[in-house]
Amino acid sequence: MTDFFQGLAPVRFDPDATDDLSFRHYDRDEIVLGKRLEDHLRFSVAWWHSFAWPGGDPFGGQTFQRPWFPDAMGGDTMAAAKLKADAAFEMFALLGQPFYCFHDADIRPEGDSFAESAARLDEMTDYLGEKMEATGTRLLWGTANLFSHRRFMAGAATNPDPAVFAYAAATVKSCIDATKKLDGANYVLWGGREGYETLLNTDLGRERQQAGRFLCMAVDYARKSGFDGTILIEPKPQEPTKHQYDYDVATVYGFLKDFGLEDEVRVNIEQGHAILAGHSFEHELALAASLGILGSIDMNRNDYQSGWDTDQFPDNVPEVARAYYEVLRAGGFTTGGTNFDAKLRRQSLDPVDLLAAHVGAMDVCARGLKAAAALLESGELEAARAARYAGWDGSDLMEMDLDAIARRVVDEDIRPEPVSGRQERLENIWNRYV
Amino acid sequence: MTDFFQGLAPVRFDPDATDDLSFRHYDRDEIVLGKRLEDHLRFSVAWWHSFAWPGGDPFGGQTFQRPWFPDAMGGDTMAAAKLKADAAFEMFALLGQPFYCFHDADIRPEGDSFAESAARLDEMTDYLGEKMEATGTRLLWGTANLFSHRRFMAGAATNPDPAVFAYAAATVKSCIDATKKLDGANYVLWGGREGYETLLNTDLGRERQQAGRFLCMAVDYARKSGFDGTILIEPKPQEPTKHQYDYDVATVYGFLKDFGLEDEVRVNIEQGHAILAGHSFEHELALAASLGILGSIDMNRNDYQSGWDTDQFPDNVPEVARAYYEVLRAGGFTTGGTNFDAKLRRQSLDPVDLLAAHVGAMDVCARGLKAAAALLESGELEAARAARYAGWDGSDLMEMDLDAIARRVVDEDIRPEPVSGRQERLENIWNRYV
Amino acid sequence: MTDFFQGLAPVRFDPDATDDLSFRHYDRDEIVLGKRLEDHLRFSVAWWHSFAWPGGDPFGGQTFQRPWFPDAMGGDTMAAAKLKADAAFEMFALLGQPFYCFHDADIRPEGDSFAESAARLDEMTDYLGEKMEATGTRLLWGTANLFSHRRFMAGAATNPDPAVFAYAAATVKSCIDATKKLDGANYVLWGGREGYETLLNTDLGRERQQAGRFLCMAVDYARKSGFDGTILIEPKPQEPTKHQYDYDVATVYGFLKDFGLEDEVRVNIEQGHAILAGHSFEHELALAASLGILGSIDMNRNDYQSGWDTDQFPDNVPEVARAYYEVLRAGGFTTGGTNFDAKLRRQSLDPVDLLAAHVGAMDVCARGLKAAAALLESGELEAARAARYAGWDGSDLMEMDLDAIARRVVDEDIRPEPVSGRQERLENIWNRYV
Amino acid sequence: MTDFFQGLAPVRFDPDATDDLSFRHYDRDEIVLGKRLEDHLRFSVAWWHSFAWPGGDPFGGQTFQRPWFPDAMGGDTMAAAKLKADAAFEMFALLGQPFYCFHDADIRPEGDSFAESAARLDEMTDYLGEKMEATGTRLLWGTANLFSHRRFMAGAATNPDPAVFAYAAATVKSCIDATKKLDGANYVLWGGREGYETLLNTDLGRERQQAGRFLCMAVDYARKSGFDGTILIEPKPQEPTKHQYDYDVATVYGFLKDFGLEDEVRVNIEQGHAILAGHSFEHELALAASLGILGSIDMNRNDYQSGWDTDQFPDNVPEVARAYYEVLRAGGFTTGGTNFDAKLRRQSLDPVDLLAAHVGAMDVCARGLKAAAALLESGELEAARAARYAGWDGSDLMEMDLDAIARRVVDEDIRPEPVSGRQERLENIWNRYV
Repeated sequence: MTDFFQGLAPVRFDPDATDDLSFRHYDRDEIVLGKRLEDHLRFSVAWWHSFAWPGGDPFGGQTFQRPWFPDAMGGDTMAAAKLKADAAFEMFALLGQPFYCFHDADIRPEGDSFAESAARLDEMTDYLGEKMEATGTRLLWGTANLFSHRRFMAGAATNPDPAVFAYAAATVKSCIDATKKLDGANYVLWGGREGYETLLNTDLGRERQQAGRFLCMAVDYARKSGFDGTILIEPKPQEPTKHQYDYDVATVYGFLKDFGLEDEVRVNIEQGHAILAGHSFEHELALAASLGILGSIDMNRNDYQSGWDTDQFPDNVPEVARAYYEVLRAGGFTTGGTNFDAKLRRQSLDPVDLLAAHVGAMDVCARGLKAAAALLESGELEAARAARYAGWDGSDLMEMDLDAIARRVVDEDIRPEPVSGRQERLENIWNRYV
Repeated sequence: MTDFFQGLAPVRFDPDATDDLSFRHYDRDEIVLGKRLEDHLRFSVAWWHSFAWPGGDPFGGQTFQRPWFPDAMGGDTMAAAKLKADAAFEMFALLGQPFYCFHDADIRPEGDSFAESAARLDEMTDYLGEKMEATGTRLLWGTANLFSHRRFMAGAATNPDPAVFAYAAATVKSCIDATKKLDGANYVLWGGREGYETLLNTDLGRERQQAGRFLCMAVDYARKSGFDGTILIEPKPQEPTKHQYDYDVATVYGFLKDFGLEDEVRVNIEQGHAILAGHSFEHELALAASLGILGSIDMNRNDYQSGWDTDQFPDNVPEVARAYYEVLRAGGFTTGGTNFDAKLRRQSLDPVDLLAAHVGAMDVCARGLKAAAALLESGELEAARAARYAGWDGSDLMEMDLDAIARRVVDEDIRPEPVSGRQERLENIWNRYV
Repeated sequence: MTDFFQGLAPVRFDPDATDDLSFRHYDRDEIVLGKRLEDHLRFSVAWWHSFAWPGGDPFGGQTFQRPWFPDAMGGDTMAAAKLKADAAFEMFALLGQPFYCFHDADIRPEGDSFAESAARLDEMTDYLGEKMEATGTRLLWGTANLFSHRRFMAGAATNPDPAVFAYAAATVKSCIDATKKLDGANYVLWGGREGYETLLNTDLGRERQQAGRFLCMAVDYARKSGFDGTILIEPKPQEPTKHQYDYDVATVYGFLKDFGLEDEVRVNIEQGHAILAGHSFEHELALAASLGILGSIDMNRNDYQSGWDTDQFPDNVPEVARAYYEVLRAGGFTTGGTNFDAKLRRQSLDPVDLLAAHVGAMDVCARGLKAAAALLESGELEAARAARYAGWDGSDLMEMDLDAIARRVVDEDIRPEPVSGRQERLENIWNRYV
Repeated sequence: MTDFFQGLAPVRFDPDATDDLSFRHYDRDEIVLGKRLEDHLRFSVAWWHSFAWPGGDPFGGQTFQRPWFPDAMGGDTMAAAKLKADAAFEMFALLGQPFYCFHDADIRPEGDSFAESAARLDEMTDYLGEKMEATGTRLLWGTANLFSHRRFMAGAATNPDPAVFAYAAATVKSCIDATKKLDGANYVLWGGREGYETLLNTDLGRERQQAGRFLCMAVDYARKSGFDGTILIEPKPQEPTKHQYDYDVATVYGFLKDFGLEDEVRVNIEQGHAILAGHSFEHELALAASLGILGSIDMNRNDYQSGWDTDQFPDNVPEVARAYYEVLRAGGFTTGGTNFDAKLRRQSLDPVDLLAAHVGAMDVCARGLKAAAALLESGELEAARAARYAGWDGSDLMEMDLDAIARRVVDEDIRPEPVSGRQERLENIWNRYV
């Protein structure tokens, strides 16, 4: 045992708690729409932000001082990686959330060669596997970090240098292997540097072909190797690059269609990325659901004032409820879940901050999902929506051609009369449940 | 002759002019890359902003006082429409641009019924046709206004009411007919209200199907009726609606793929809309070109400070040059052209303002295109771009699978070394031509 | 009686109501922090959006059809104005809110001359005065519309033409008179066109002097004429102009300091305007409070996706709670109140929409204020805030000079140790009350 | 001599150059408006971006490999600092720009105590002083880095902990001393962390008082110590904090007025910061000029698509010309200058990139300033501006009161007639010079 979370007890559900570190809303065994709350929400902790991030920003360096940070361990990077894993599983035990997620770079130190990095990944997944078996915590998804190392500065799959493409491909192979080994429910690709800094040096069309081929390879390999989880793409419009290719759900959909992958790949949608792309979170979710590609979510918010990814823990129940309403309408998660791709503010230095952040976020999500479920169950909103489109029932318009429709408009002197959209009334209904 | 432009003479090309109303850069007969400048740029004036817009904004009403505005004509709306057309063709004669564009609602007064509106459209296109024949001015594109009348407040093709869908379909039929009659080079669809105000009352998936079916009908009808111009969709992310379905080029592409129309329909890209969607104009152009759907452009800018469409006349030569560079790289316009979907500022009250705006914009475009052509001809940028990707020549990576690539990375101990992207140098090259 | 709201009954407070049109949270007589809820919130309905706005946007015209709209009244504009007033007071009776607000242009038709407009204003304020006396509804504030008429297209006080300055000054005089006559609690100035479209034709410094002089005149006249309400400026960064001079609270403060008016004038802060200026609503409120110039609020929200003022009814309780927390911390409203400067969505055509919007908004505000009051009363947040700055108690640093401090740092070898800011914990506390 | 810039020759002015590394527009001795171009532009290189920044971003680490980076020097940090200085002055010799700028943290390694850091600063300023004497390169401004070290994570002057205030104050003293010693023309304060992450833990009013007192101390010390340069504040709205106190020029002005410093302190305005605050660069310049507080500029641009500070080298001549037009209208720089607070893109790895970036930027600025000067000299724009306000000449309106003006409006039946603002014509004039 590390002593990092010393003095902190497992978080209990107690609606009347007066302390800072209890769940007041997240009772994992509560039955909502016929399912345990835990099975609806499928919470996951992100290794990178919660255990690997040092607290830096573009104007300042490390603020966190963790015993497993390289500067605290005298250079034994594998020992540091294991201490980090120990602390992570201790937090999982305190929180009791069912899942976690990782990038390869979060759990293993970079080696001097690809082979060494891969061997370390293998050693660390053994280590994690034992802990998972001992505790029951599962892997929601694994992924490859193809953006932090300077070799990826100009992209991974879309790099002008085929050697980088190859290195990235080998890395994805090793990460699919690791995810399969740990029985991950999904495998995620986020193309942080798959984009460009300037069009002046970029061949958009060529890079798009590279990305398409790369994704096909990954899907083929996953299937061939027996990985039966879901492959997910995580859209983001920009940052770190000026412009990323997986801009938003609609862009990813066109890309999947182009490469014939729309039945093979789904999306992992993040609130912050939706906002940066000019959408709402619920828009991206509803669109993905309507296209049949809704996979999983990252439930971290951006600050509306800040034009970059702030990755904050969720704190606005009505907003979170909007998101879960779309998830529930679409039938709920299958392999997906609610990952907190959220980081502490860099001034939140203490272990208790890390715990408090997750506790608060889980409660906010529980409140949001329960409100969404109650509204969905009531049918109030869905009845209004259905009524609005009721005129289409039995209509033959969709089978006609323009000519015939035009004749009908003239013959029947059709003069459509506008009907109130009732937005404010629907917002009031919404607020009755949230 | 109206006396609206009284005292203004046809605009001449004179590089040494000292007056306000000469072209200093747009010599229509100048040969650039083997083609007349006029045939490169294919300028078009927009009927709506230049002749129909009264100068209102959300906080104030009409500022312009045109002799053809209904309040000035004592209610004879057809006479007003003809006076407006007279003035428009007088301005075309002053400017000498080869094309114009219109919505049905710009050129004919709304009738009491669809049939009456259609009859008026027919009468007005007769009137325009005579003027076109007399002057040689051509139609770049026609389109239907499916957003101003209150019947379209909740969308046209995507309306919850099938009667509105029908009315919109009949309207598009009449506008395709009108465009064909006037030998338009393209037909444009802009879905100003094809989107939503709130997801609470919206069935995204259903509305997307309606939009897809509507577009198929339009394409079928155009082909069947013998219209041989290009069908164009104009993407825009929002405004007037909170969220529009034709968000950007990538979204439209996915939509076209879904309905099997990617070889039938192209895009009309506007700088302002690109900006609102979080892209640059050149991004949207380059992307459309790489997807094979680049059609035409609206060369009006947004104010970067303003979060809505300001539709200003272009005034920044380097920005315009970036856009034309992408157009020229893609082979230049075929049926498309440069439409000024630009309106005077509402304080620019006088006829001379209207002329000055177009003269300045045409000169800015001419400078931009000529700079872009010179750079393209020099090959400096394209050589640098090609060199950056040269490593891919002869590479077999794209044909391999993940497994084999991973083995190669290990066997050959591949360690990619980053290479400078040379962005600043390329920007300097750029500035040598602009 | 008009029959506009026919069939709608006065809105009652009933926490268990099952219908659409009851207050579930706004019990006006509930005592919160020792004061009636009505006296905390001081709700006000805005004449312009609720009764004058026709439902247009930049891409479409009128959608609402009100019996008092000029096109429905056969040209008798004074009769229309009175019918509008009748309907307004009928809605006030249904809602029971204590206040309303108006611009001159909302309540009287524009005359052919200033004198005629002023006479009509006088006649209409007589008419309103009688209704106020009969019903007890009061005036929160009056204001002059100095932006809709084309004479104001280039500004009112800051117009390059002194004749417009004069016209605007006379108009403000007439509106201060009207506000005093109706015993308004405040008088508001919003400089919708006090800004510019392009710096190329603008003398910033000169226009700022004009604005300063204009404000001094208005304050002097108000005091001299015996008006004892508060003079308020409403900051907004842009729209309709590219850039407005009263950008935000900090800008207005600098302006007031410059003209010696910081003790005479306060600010009326709107959520939507705060957002457009890159702030949060609570920031603007907290800043104004700390500067001693917090006056009143406009409680309408913007859509975060839309870069223009959407003026929607509030619907997010936690956001509204943040705002009221700052208002309560500052001691609550004195002459100010909660004005709904909010308009129906343009698809919300029916009278019942107008009522539902206000009912929902009032409930959202009541929930927000009560949550804020409970948290403030608990002292949990304020205790944490005070503790964070406790080190300053008894510190003499603020009285020292740089030299002496530097010596102390060296002599005492001061090495400050960072302390957690506890943001996530404080957000959790917040969520316990909201 | 280091061998960092090996093989690169001093940059020469040659309008017909065909290579990458000549000035084509910046002839330092060219006389413009009676002054040498060098004396107009007063170019300065920023130590931090050009020599200290490792190429990281929030998603990836160091890409640059400089011989003076700590990891390359085996831990001898003072030797590294001197090598860095050697390379910097070698680049200055290549470029021939007259000035440079630094933060303390750029030029000296952090010590274990304040005293050690200060001693190192002293040693390094000796070292720089010798080089300055030898080469003639001067110091445009010095400043203190009060944002990178974790001790400043919650602010410097506005920290809740007085020990941090003290440390910051001592640091500023040492930096004013260093700036004076090197005969710096200005001293700059940028409050990177003077703001907040969340209002929940922040006392806005208290922090503002701390900031005011801190600035007064700095001004007093500067004057007392005999520093006769200008004290400058650099406004920025956000990043790294959610909200910074020195939001923009207008905010800083109100702050200066409040603490009686408006005659003592000026502003250093950056294009990127202006954009982030919702303004144009030229707006901030024109406003500062009209308020009498225009000091100096940072001539680095933001990417309009990116919601964070991208600090790119300028590349758009018309935009740069707009900025210099305002500078020239205000009389040009006195102690201020043109600092390139610009960093290479992180993919621009090579020494030649660093040189190319500055060469290109200097040429862009030279083109911009010369265009602005020509337009100013022509008087075309200023004549139009003056004419627009000519009605105010001889007007007595500004001396009247509201009452008297209102009487005049009635008596003379004043009916202002709107006049065209001629925006498009003025934009055309602009483009004739750029």
